[in-house]
Amino acid sequence: MSASASETIRVSEIFGPTIQGEGALIGQPTVFVRTGGCDYRCSWCDSLHAVDSRFRADWRPMTTAEILARVRALSGDAPLMVSLSGGNPAIQPLGPLIRQGQAKGYRFALETQGSVSRDWFSDLDMLVLSPKPPSSAMTTDWDALGDCVKAAASKPRIALKFVIFDEADFAYAREVAARFPYLPVYLQPGNHTPPGPEDMDACIDTEGILGRMGWLIDRVIAERWFAAHVLPQLHVLIWGNKRGV
Amino acid sequence: MSASASETIRVSEIFGPTIQGEGALIGQPTVFVRTGGCDYRCSWCDSLHAVDSRFRADWRPMTTAEILARVRALSGDAPLMVSLSGGNPAIQPLGPLIRQGQAKGYRFALETQGSVSRDWFSDLDMLVLSPKPPSSAMTTDWDALGDCVKAAASKPRIALKFVIFDEADFAYAREVAARFPYLPVYLQPGNHTPPGPEDMDACIDTEGILGRMGWLIDRVIAERWFAAHVLPQLHVLIWGNKRGV
Repeated sequence: MSASASETIRVSEIFGPTIQGEGALIGQPTVFVRTGGCDYRCSWCDSLHAVDSRFRADWRPMTTAEILARVRALSGDAPLMVSLSGGNPAIQPLGPLIRQGQAKGYRFALETQGSVSRDWFSDLDMLVLSPKPPSSAMTTDWDALGDCVKAAASKPRIALKFVIFDEADFAYAREVAARFPYLPVYLQPGNHTPPGPEDMDACIDTEGILGRMGWLIDRVIAERWFAAHVLPQLHVLIWGNKRGV
Repeated sequence: MSASASETIRVSEIFGPTIQGEGALIGQPTVFVRTGGCDYRCSWCDSLHAVDSRFRADWRPMTTAEILARVRALSGDAPLMVSLSGGNPAIQPLGPLIRQGQAKGYRFALETQGSVSRDWFSDLDMLVLSPKPPSSAMTTDWDALGDCVKAAASKPRIALKFVIFDEADFAYAREVAARFPYLPVYLQPGNHTPPGPEDMDACIDTEGILGRMGWLIDRVIAERWFAAHVLPQLHVLIWGNKRGV
Protein backbone atom coordinates (compact mmCIF):
# COMPACT_ATOMS: atom_id res chain seq x y z
CA MET A 1 0.00 0.00 0.00
CA SER A 2 1.38 3.40 -0.89
CA ALA A 3 0.40 6.36 1.24
CA SER A 4 0.11 9.83 -0.16
CA ALA A 5 1.27 12.78 1.91
CA SER A 6 -2.31 13.97 2.28
CA GLU A 7 -3.60 10.78 3.87
CA THR A 8 -4.42 11.16 7.52
CA ILE A 9 -3.62 8.82 10.36
CA ARG A 10 -6.13 8.12 13.14
CA VAL A 11 -4.33 9.01 16.35
CA SER A 12 -5.61 8.02 19.77
CA GLU A 13 -2.78 9.64 21.73
CA ILE A 14 0.78 10.90 21.46
CA PHE A 15 2.75 11.03 24.71
CA GLY A 16 6.22 11.01 26.16
CA PRO A 17 9.08 11.01 26.30
CA THR A 18 8.93 8.29 28.91
CA ILE A 19 10.71 4.96 29.05
CA GLN A 20 9.61 1.95 27.06
CA GLY A 21 8.18 -0.35 29.68
CA GLU A 22 8.37 -3.72 27.96
CA GLY A 23 10.03 -5.95 25.41
CA ALA A 24 13.29 -5.67 23.53
CA LEU A 25 13.55 -1.89 23.93
CA ILE A 26 12.75 -1.88 27.66
CA GLY A 27 14.16 1.11 29.51
CA GLN A 28 14.74 3.28 26.43
CA PRO A 29 13.42 6.86 26.37
CA THR A 30 10.57 6.80 23.87
CA VAL A 31 7.73 8.89 22.47
CA PHE A 32 4.60 6.84 21.87
CA VAL A 33 2.25 7.40 18.93
CA ARG A 34 -0.83 5.30 19.58
CA THR A 35 -3.14 4.92 16.61
CA GLY A 36 -6.87 4.27 16.88
CA GLY A 37 -8.57 1.21 15.44
CA CYS A 38 -7.86 -2.50 15.53
CA ASP A 39 -8.81 -5.62 13.57
CA TYR A 40 -8.61 -7.63 16.83
CA ARG A 41 -10.61 -7.60 20.06
CA CYS A 42 -8.42 -9.38 22.59
CA SER A 43 -10.29 -10.49 25.70
CA TRP A 44 -7.75 -8.82 27.97
CA CYS A 45 -7.01 -5.74 25.81
CA ASP A 46 -5.35 -3.02 27.92
CA SER A 47 -5.84 -0.30 25.28
CA LEU A 48 -9.58 -0.40 24.56
CA HIS A 49 -9.60 3.40 24.29
CA ALA A 50 -7.61 2.91 21.07
CA VAL A 51 -9.51 -0.16 19.90
CA ASP A 52 -13.22 0.04 20.60
CA SER A 53 -15.07 2.07 17.95
CA ARG A 54 -17.15 3.60 20.77
CA PHE A 55 -14.11 5.84 21.26
CA ARG A 56 -13.68 6.63 17.60
CA ALA A 57 -14.69 10.24 18.17
CA ASP A 58 -11.54 10.62 20.30
CA TRP A 59 -9.25 9.50 17.46
CA ARG A 60 -7.98 12.61 15.76
CA PRO A 61 -7.19 12.42 12.05
CA MET A 62 -3.68 13.86 11.80
CA THR A 63 -1.33 14.33 8.86
CA THR A 64 2.21 13.01 8.84
CA ALA A 65 3.48 16.57 9.25
CA GLU A 66 1.23 17.20 12.26
CA ILE A 67 2.34 14.01 14.01
CA LEU A 68 6.02 14.65 13.34
CA ALA A 69 5.69 18.23 14.62
CA ARG A 70 4.13 16.92 17.83
CA VAL A 71 6.85 14.29 18.31
CA ARG A 72 9.55 16.91 17.74
CA ALA A 73 7.89 19.32 20.18
CA LEU A 74 7.61 16.66 22.88
CA SER A 75 11.25 15.62 22.50
CA GLY A 76 12.62 19.16 22.22
CA ASP A 77 13.81 18.30 18.71
CA ALA A 78 16.29 15.77 20.15
CA PRO A 79 16.01 12.50 18.21
CA LEU A 80 14.92 9.41 20.10
CA MET A 81 12.96 6.20 19.62
CA VAL A 82 9.33 6.59 18.52
CA SER A 83 7.06 3.64 19.27
CA LEU A 84 4.11 3.19 16.92
CA SER A 85 1.44 1.24 18.75
CA GLY A 86 -2.32 0.96 18.88
CA GLY A 87 -4.76 -0.53 18.31
CA ASN A 88 -3.06 -2.05 15.30
CA PRO A 89 -0.81 0.60 13.76
CA ALA A 90 -0.29 -1.58 10.69
CA ILE A 91 -3.73 -0.54 9.40
CA GLN A 92 -2.64 3.12 9.25
CA PRO A 93 -0.57 4.76 6.47
CA LEU A 94 2.61 5.25 8.55
CA GLY A 95 5.26 4.86 5.84
CA PRO A 96 5.75 8.61 5.23
CA LEU A 97 5.98 9.34 8.97
CA ILE A 98 8.73 6.74 9.40
CA ARG A 99 10.77 8.02 6.46
CA GLN A 100 10.35 11.72 7.27
CA GLY A 101 11.10 11.15 10.95
CA GLN A 102 14.21 9.13 10.16
CA ALA A 103 15.43 12.00 8.00
CA LYS A 104 15.40 14.08 11.21
CA GLY A 105 17.29 11.39 13.14
CA TYR A 106 14.34 9.71 14.88
CA ARG A 107 14.10 5.94 15.03
CA PHE A 108 10.87 3.99 14.74
CA ALA A 109 9.62 0.81 16.34
CA LEU A 110 6.21 -0.63 15.47
CA GLU A 111 4.26 -3.11 17.52
CA THR A 112 1.59 -5.20 15.86
CA GLN A 113 -0.10 -8.57 16.26
CA GLY A 114 1.10 -9.56 12.79
CA SER A 115 -2.31 -9.77 11.13
CA VAL A 116 -1.61 -7.15 8.45
CA SER A 117 1.72 -6.72 6.63
CA ARG A 118 2.92 -3.54 4.93
CA ASP A 119 5.77 -2.97 2.51
CA TRP A 120 6.95 -0.06 4.69
CA PHE A 121 7.80 -2.49 7.54
CA SER A 122 11.21 -2.70 5.86
CA ASP A 123 11.78 0.99 6.68
CA LEU A 124 11.39 0.45 10.43
CA ASP A 125 14.27 0.29 12.91
CA MET A 126 12.45 -2.33 14.95
CA LEU A 127 9.40 -4.50 14.26
CA VAL A 128 7.81 -6.14 17.30
CA LEU A 129 5.46 -8.94 16.32
CA SER A 130 3.12 -9.80 19.16
CA PRO A 131 0.90 -12.68 18.02
CA LYS A 132 -2.00 -13.18 20.37
CA PRO A 133 -2.16 -16.44 22.37
CA PRO A 134 -5.28 -18.54 23.08
CA SER A 135 -6.27 -16.52 26.17
CA SER A 136 -6.95 -13.54 23.87
CA ALA A 137 -9.70 -15.54 22.10
CA MET A 138 -8.20 -14.45 18.78
CA THR A 139 -7.11 -16.81 15.98
CA THR A 140 -3.67 -16.52 14.42
CA ASP A 141 -3.43 -16.01 10.67
CA TRP A 142 -0.15 -17.83 10.08
CA ASP A 143 0.18 -16.64 6.49
CA ALA A 144 -0.22 -13.01 7.52
CA LEU A 145 2.33 -13.42 10.32
CA GLY A 146 4.82 -14.92 7.88
CA ASP A 147 4.13 -12.08 5.46
CA CYS A 148 5.01 -9.56 8.19
CA VAL A 149 8.40 -11.19 8.73
CA LYS A 150 8.98 -11.24 4.96
CA ALA A 151 7.90 -7.59 4.58
CA ALA A 152 10.45 -6.53 7.17
CA ALA A 153 13.09 -8.16 5.00
CA SER A 154 16.55 -7.78 6.44
CA LYS A 155 16.56 -4.19 7.61
CA PRO A 156 14.78 -3.78 10.94
CA ARG A 157 15.50 -5.77 14.04
CA ILE A 158 12.53 -8.11 14.53
CA ALA A 159 11.42 -9.55 17.87
CA LEU A 160 8.56 -11.78 18.94
CA LYS A 161 6.68 -10.70 22.06
CA PHE A 162 4.08 -12.80 23.85
CA VAL A 163 1.67 -11.95 26.62
CA ILE A 164 1.38 -15.12 28.72
CA PHE A 165 -1.47 -15.92 31.09
CA ASP A 166 -1.38 -19.70 31.33
CA GLU A 167 0.04 -22.99 30.07
CA ALA A 168 -1.89 -22.81 26.81
CA ASP A 169 -0.39 -19.40 26.09
CA PHE A 170 3.06 -20.72 26.94
CA ALA A 171 2.65 -23.64 24.53
CA TYR A 172 1.49 -21.21 21.83
CA ALA A 173 4.60 -19.06 22.32
CA ARG A 174 6.77 -22.17 22.01
CA GLU A 175 5.02 -23.05 18.76
CA VAL A 176 5.42 -19.60 17.19
CA ALA A 177 9.06 -19.40 18.29
CA ALA A 178 9.71 -22.80 16.66
CA ARG A 179 8.29 -21.44 13.39
CA PHE A 180 10.71 -18.48 13.52
CA PRO A 181 13.77 -19.91 15.24
CA TYR A 182 16.02 -16.95 14.42
CA LEU A 183 13.83 -14.29 16.04
CA PRO A 184 14.51 -13.23 19.64
CA VAL A 185 11.62 -13.97 22.00
CA TYR A 186 10.24 -11.81 24.83
CA LEU A 187 7.69 -13.29 27.24
CA GLN A 188 5.59 -11.04 29.43
CA PRO A 189 3.21 -12.00 32.22
CA GLY A 190 -0.31 -10.86 31.40
CA ASN A 191 -2.02 -8.11 33.37
CA HIS A 192 -5.24 -9.74 34.57
CA THR A 193 -6.48 -6.41 35.92
CA PRO A 194 -6.21 -4.26 32.76
CA PRO A 195 -7.64 -0.76 32.77
CA GLY A 196 -11.07 -0.26 31.29
CA PRO A 197 -11.19 2.58 28.77
CA GLU A 198 -12.83 4.85 31.34
CA ASP A 199 -11.50 3.52 34.66
CA MET A 200 -7.77 3.95 34.43
CA ASP A 201 -7.50 4.12 38.16
CA ALA A 202 -8.68 0.54 38.55
CA CYS A 203 -6.61 -1.22 41.15
CA ILE A 204 -3.63 -3.14 39.84
CA ASP A 205 -2.92 -6.53 41.34
CA THR A 206 0.85 -6.06 41.44
CA GLU A 207 1.34 -9.13 43.63
CA GLY A 208 -0.57 -11.22 41.11
CA ILE A 209 1.49 -9.92 38.18
CA LEU A 210 4.77 -10.55 40.00
CA GLY A 211 3.54 -14.01 40.98
CA ARG A 212 2.80 -14.78 37.33
CA MET A 213 6.23 -13.40 36.43
CA GLY A 214 7.81 -15.85 38.88
CA TRP A 215 5.78 -18.70 37.42
CA LEU A 216 6.83 -17.73 33.90
CA ILE A 217 10.50 -17.69 34.89
CA ASP A 218 10.09 -21.14 36.45
CA ARG A 219 8.48 -22.47 33.26
CA VAL A 220 11.20 -21.05 30.99
CA ILE A 221 13.91 -22.53 33.21
CA ALA A 222 12.13 -25.89 33.52
CA GLU A 223 11.89 -26.14 29.71
CA ARG A 224 15.48 -24.89 29.35
CA TRP A 225 14.17 -22.30 26.91
CA PHE A 226 17.31 -20.23 27.39
CA ALA A 227 16.85 -18.17 24.23
CA ALA A 228 13.73 -16.53 25.67
CA HIS A 229 13.67 -13.31 27.68
CA VAL A 230 11.18 -12.85 30.51
CA LEU A 231 10.24 -9.26 31.31
CA PRO A 232 7.35 -7.59 33.11
CA GLN A 233 5.61 -4.38 32.06
CA LEU A 234 7.64 -1.84 34.04
CA HIS A 235 5.12 0.95 33.49
CA VAL A 236 2.41 -1.13 35.17
CA LEU A 237 4.67 -1.81 38.15
CA ILE A 238 5.66 1.85 38.45
CA TRP A 239 2.49 3.67 37.54
CA GLY A 240 -0.27 1.07 37.63
CA ASN A 241 -2.73 1.48 34.77
CA LYS A 242 -2.27 5.24 34.49
CA ARG A 243 -2.33 6.41 30.89
CA GLY A 244 0.16 8.75 29.19
CA VAL A 245 3.28 7.85 31.14
CA MET B 1 48.10 -11.98 34.04
CA SER B 2 48.18 -15.54 32.83
CA ALA B 3 46.29 -18.15 34.78
CA SER B 4 47.41 -21.72 34.93
CA ALA B 5 44.83 -24.49 34.91
CA SER B 6 45.70 -25.37 38.49
CA GLU B 7 44.90 -21.94 39.90
CA THR B 8 41.78 -21.86 41.98
CA ILE B 9 39.01 -19.29 41.96
CA ARG B 10 37.38 -18.12 45.19
CA VAL B 11 33.67 -18.79 44.74
CA SER B 12 31.03 -17.32 47.04
CA GLU B 13 28.07 -18.92 45.27
CA ILE B 14 26.95 -20.48 42.00
CA PHE B 15 23.22 -20.40 41.32
CA GLY B 16 20.63 -20.48 38.59
CA PRO B 17 19.45 -20.68 35.99
CA THR B 18 17.27 -17.69 36.76
CA ILE B 19 16.76 -14.51 34.78
CA GLN B 20 19.24 -11.67 34.78
CA GLY B 21 17.48 -8.99 36.79
CA GLU B 22 19.27 -5.85 35.65
CA GLY B 23 21.23 -4.06 32.98
CA ALA B 24 21.77 -4.77 29.31
CA LEU B 25 21.00 -8.49 29.61
CA ILE B 26 17.84 -8.04 31.66
CA GLY B 27 15.38 -10.90 31.32
CA GLN B 28 17.88 -13.45 29.95
CA PRO B 29 18.14 -16.89 31.52
CA THR B 30 21.50 -16.89 33.30
CA VAL B 31 23.66 -18.90 35.66
CA PHE B 32 25.50 -16.70 38.15
CA VAL B 33 29.03 -17.39 39.36
CA ARG B 34 29.69 -15.00 42.23
CA THR B 35 33.32 -14.79 43.30
CA GLY B 36 34.45 -13.83 46.78
CA GLY B 37 36.63 -10.83 47.52
CA CYS B 38 36.58 -7.20 46.50
CA ASP B 39 38.97 -4.26 46.35
CA TYR B 40 36.02 -1.93 47.11
CA ARG B 41 33.74 -1.45 50.11
CA CYS B 42 30.73 0.42 48.75
CA SER B 43 28.61 1.99 51.46
CA TRP B 44 25.44 0.40 50.07
CA CYS B 45 26.94 -2.93 48.96
CA ASP B 46 24.19 -5.51 48.46
CA SER B 47 26.60 -8.47 48.28
CA LEU B 48 28.63 -8.17 51.48
CA HIS B 49 28.61 -11.96 51.83
CA ALA B 50 30.91 -11.98 48.79
CA VAL B 51 32.92 -8.91 49.81
CA ASP B 52 33.59 -8.77 53.53
CA SER B 53 36.58 -10.92 54.53
CA ARG B 54 34.60 -11.97 57.62
CA PHE B 55 32.88 -14.37 55.21
CA ARG B 56 36.07 -15.57 53.60
CA ALA B 57 35.66 -19.02 55.14
CA ASP B 58 32.50 -19.38 53.02
CA TRP B 59 34.39 -18.77 49.77
CA ARG B 60 35.27 -22.13 48.33
CA PRO B 61 38.45 -22.41 46.25
CA MET B 62 37.32 -24.12 43.05
CA THR B 63 39.17 -25.09 39.91
CA THR B 64 38.00 -24.05 36.47
CA ALA B 65 36.90 -27.63 35.81
CA GLU B 66 34.85 -27.76 39.03
CA ILE B 67 33.08 -24.49 38.25
CA LEU B 68 32.34 -25.48 34.67
CA ALA B 69 31.00 -28.85 35.81
CA ARG B 70 28.67 -27.10 38.26
CA VAL B 71 27.44 -24.63 35.60
CA ARG B 72 26.79 -27.49 33.18
CA ALA B 73 24.95 -29.49 35.83
CA LEU B 74 22.73 -26.54 36.76
CA SER B 75 21.86 -25.82 33.14
CA GLY B 76 21.36 -29.46 32.14
CA ASP B 77 24.25 -29.06 29.70
CA ALA B 78 22.20 -26.59 27.64
CA PRO B 79 24.37 -23.55 26.87
CA LEU B 80 23.23 -20.20 28.20
CA MET B 81 24.62 -16.92 29.52
CA VAL B 82 26.93 -17.15 32.54
CA SER B 83 27.26 -13.99 34.60
CA LEU B 84 30.55 -13.58 36.47
CA SER B 85 29.96 -11.25 39.38
CA GLY B 86 31.23 -10.67 42.89
CA GLY B 87 32.75 -9.08 44.80
CA ASN B 88 35.03 -8.02 42.01
CA PRO B 89 35.45 -10.99 39.66
CA ALA B 90 38.29 -9.19 37.86
CA ILE B 91 40.65 -10.11 40.73
CA GLN B 92 40.11 -13.84 40.05
CA PRO B 93 41.83 -15.93 37.31
CA LEU B 94 38.71 -16.41 35.15
CA GLY B 95 40.31 -16.52 31.69
CA PRO B 96 40.42 -20.33 31.41
CA LEU B 97 36.80 -20.68 32.59
CA ILE B 98 35.61 -18.27 29.91
CA ARG B 99 37.50 -19.99 27.12
CA GLN B 100 36.64 -23.54 28.18
CA GLY B 101 32.98 -22.65 28.72
CA GLN B 102 32.75 -20.94 25.33
CA ALA B 103 34.11 -24.12 23.76
CA LYS B 104 30.97 -25.81 25.14
CA GLY B 105 28.69 -23.09 23.76
CA TYR B 106 28.26 -21.02 26.93
CA ARG B 107 28.50 -17.24 26.80
CA PHE B 108 30.09 -15.11 29.50
CA ALA B 109 29.29 -11.69 30.89
CA LEU B 110 31.44 -10.11 33.59
CA GLU B 111 30.41 -7.28 35.85
CA THR B 112 33.09 -5.19 37.53
CA GLN B 113 33.55 -1.69 38.87
CA GLY B 114 36.43 -1.15 36.45
CA SER B 115 39.23 -0.86 39.00
CA VAL B 116 41.27 -3.83 37.69
CA SER B 117 41.72 -4.70 34.00
CA ARG B 118 42.63 -8.13 32.65
CA ASP B 119 43.81 -9.16 29.20
CA TRP B 120 41.13 -11.89 29.17
CA PHE B 121 38.37 -9.24 29.14
CA SER B 122 38.72 -9.47 25.35
CA ASP B 123 37.47 -13.07 25.50
CA LEU B 124 34.15 -12.10 27.13
CA ASP B 125 30.85 -11.90 25.30
CA MET B 126 29.81 -8.93 27.43
CA LEU B 127 31.69 -6.63 29.78
CA VAL B 128 29.57 -4.57 32.16
CA LEU B 129 31.53 -1.73 33.70
CA SER B 130 29.80 -0.40 36.77
CA PRO B 131 31.88 2.50 38.13
CA LYS B 132 30.78 3.48 41.60
CA PRO B 133 29.22 6.94 42.08
CA PRO B 134 29.84 9.32 45.01
CA SER B 135 27.18 7.73 47.24
CA SER B 136 29.33 4.58 47.39
CA ALA B 137 32.12 6.57 49.12
CA MET B 138 34.59 5.02 46.65
CA THR B 139 36.96 6.99 44.41
CA THR B 140 37.14 6.27 40.69
CA ASP B 141 40.53 5.35 39.20
CA TRP B 142 40.02 6.84 35.76
CA ASP B 143 43.15 5.25 34.30
CA ALA B 144 42.07 1.78 35.44
CA LEU B 145 38.58 2.31 34.01
CA GLY B 146 40.06 3.35 30.68
CA ASP B 147 42.35 0.32 30.77
CA CYS B 148 39.31 -1.96 31.18
CA VAL B 149 37.71 -0.52 28.05
CA LYS B 150 41.00 -0.93 26.18
CA ALA B 151 41.47 -4.50 27.45
CA ALA B 152 38.05 -5.46 26.11
CA ALA B 153 39.25 -4.29 22.71
CA SER B 154 36.63 -4.76 20.04
CA LYS B 155 35.29 -8.20 20.84
CA PRO B 156 32.80 -8.11 23.70
CA ARG B 157 29.81 -5.85 23.90
CA ILE B 158 30.59 -3.26 26.58
CA ALA B 159 28.00 -1.40 28.63
CA LEU B 160 28.20 1.14 31.43
CA LYS B 161 25.90 0.55 34.38
CA PHE B 162 25.32 3.01 37.20
CA VAL B 163 23.56 2.65 40.50
CA ILE B 164 21.95 6.03 41.18
CA PHE B 165 20.81 7.29 44.56
CA ASP B 166 20.84 11.07 44.16
CA GLU B 167 21.74 14.09 42.03
CA ALA B 168 25.48 13.71 42.71
CA ASP B 169 25.35 10.13 41.43
CA PHE B 170 23.39 11.27 38.38
CA ALA B 171 26.00 13.94 37.60
CA TYR B 172 28.75 11.33 37.99
CA ALA B 173 27.03 9.02 35.51
CA ARG B 174 26.76 11.90 33.04
CA GLU B 175 30.49 12.57 33.44
CA VAL B 176 31.54 8.94 32.88
CA ALA B 177 29.19 8.60 29.91
CA ALA B 178 30.72 11.73 28.38
CA ARG B 179 34.18 10.14 28.68
CA PHE B 180 32.97 7.04 26.81
CA PRO B 181 30.38 8.42 24.41
CA TYR B 182 30.12 5.23 22.36
CA LEU B 183 29.19 2.93 25.25
CA PRO B 184 25.52 2.22 25.98
CA VAL B 185 24.41 3.41 29.41
CA TYR B 186 22.12 1.69 31.92
CA LEU B 187 20.90 3.59 34.98
CA GLN B 188 19.46 1.75 37.95
CA PRO B 189 17.79 3.18 41.04
CA GLY B 190 19.73 2.24 44.16
CA ASN B 191 18.31 -0.14 46.74
CA HIS B 192 18.48 1.84 49.96
CA THR B 193 17.39 -1.22 51.96
CA PRO B 194 20.10 -3.70 50.84
CA PRO B 195 20.35 -7.07 52.53
CA GLY B 196 22.90 -7.47 55.27
CA PRO B 197 25.10 -10.54 54.79
CA GLU B 198 23.10 -12.36 57.46
CA ASP B 199 19.64 -10.82 57.23
CA MET B 200 18.51 -11.52 53.72
CA ASP B 201 14.92 -11.33 54.80
CA ALA B 202 15.24 -7.65 55.70
CA CYS B 203 12.20 -5.78 54.49
CA ILE B 204 12.53 -4.26 51.04
CA ASP B 205 11.12 -0.78 50.53
CA THR B 206 9.63 -1.52 47.12
CA GLU B 207 7.65 1.73 47.10
CA GLY B 208 10.84 3.65 47.77
CA ILE B 209 12.73 1.90 44.96
CA LEU B 210 9.89 2.49 42.49
CA GLY B 211 9.68 6.10 43.61
CA ARG B 212 13.41 6.54 42.92
CA MET B 213 12.88 4.80 39.57
CA GLY B 214 10.22 7.39 38.69
CA TRP B 215 12.52 10.22 39.76
CA LEU B 216 15.35 8.79 37.64
CA ILE B 217 13.10 8.57 34.58
CA ASP B 218 12.06 12.19 35.13
CA ARG B 219 15.71 13.29 35.36
CA VAL B 220 16.72 11.43 32.19
CA ILE B 221 13.80 12.94 30.28
CA ALA B 222 14.40 16.45 31.69
CA GLU B 223 18.05 16.30 30.55
CA ARG B 224 17.00 14.77 27.22
CA TRP B 225 19.55 12.02 27.86
CA PHE B 226 17.81 9.80 25.32
CA ALA B 227 20.78 7.43 24.88
CA ALA B 228 20.43 6.19 28.47
CA HIS B 229 18.33 3.24 29.57
CA VAL B 230 16.57 3.25 32.93
CA LEU B 231 15.89 -0.15 34.48
CA PRO B 232 15.13 -1.39 37.99
CA GLN B 233 16.51 -4.56 39.57
CA LEU B 234 13.75 -7.01 38.66
CA HIS B 235 14.95 -9.65 41.11
CA VAL B 236 14.53 -7.20 43.99
CA LEU B 237 10.99 -6.37 42.87
CA ILE B 238 10.08 -10.04 42.44
CA TRP B 239 11.93 -11.73 45.27
CA GLY B 240 13.05 -8.91 47.60
CA ASN B 241 16.56 -9.41 48.90
CA LYS B 242 16.36 -13.22 48.81
CA ARG B 243 19.65 -14.77 47.72
CA GLY B 244 20.14 -17.45 45.06
CA VAL B 245 17.27 -16.59 42.72
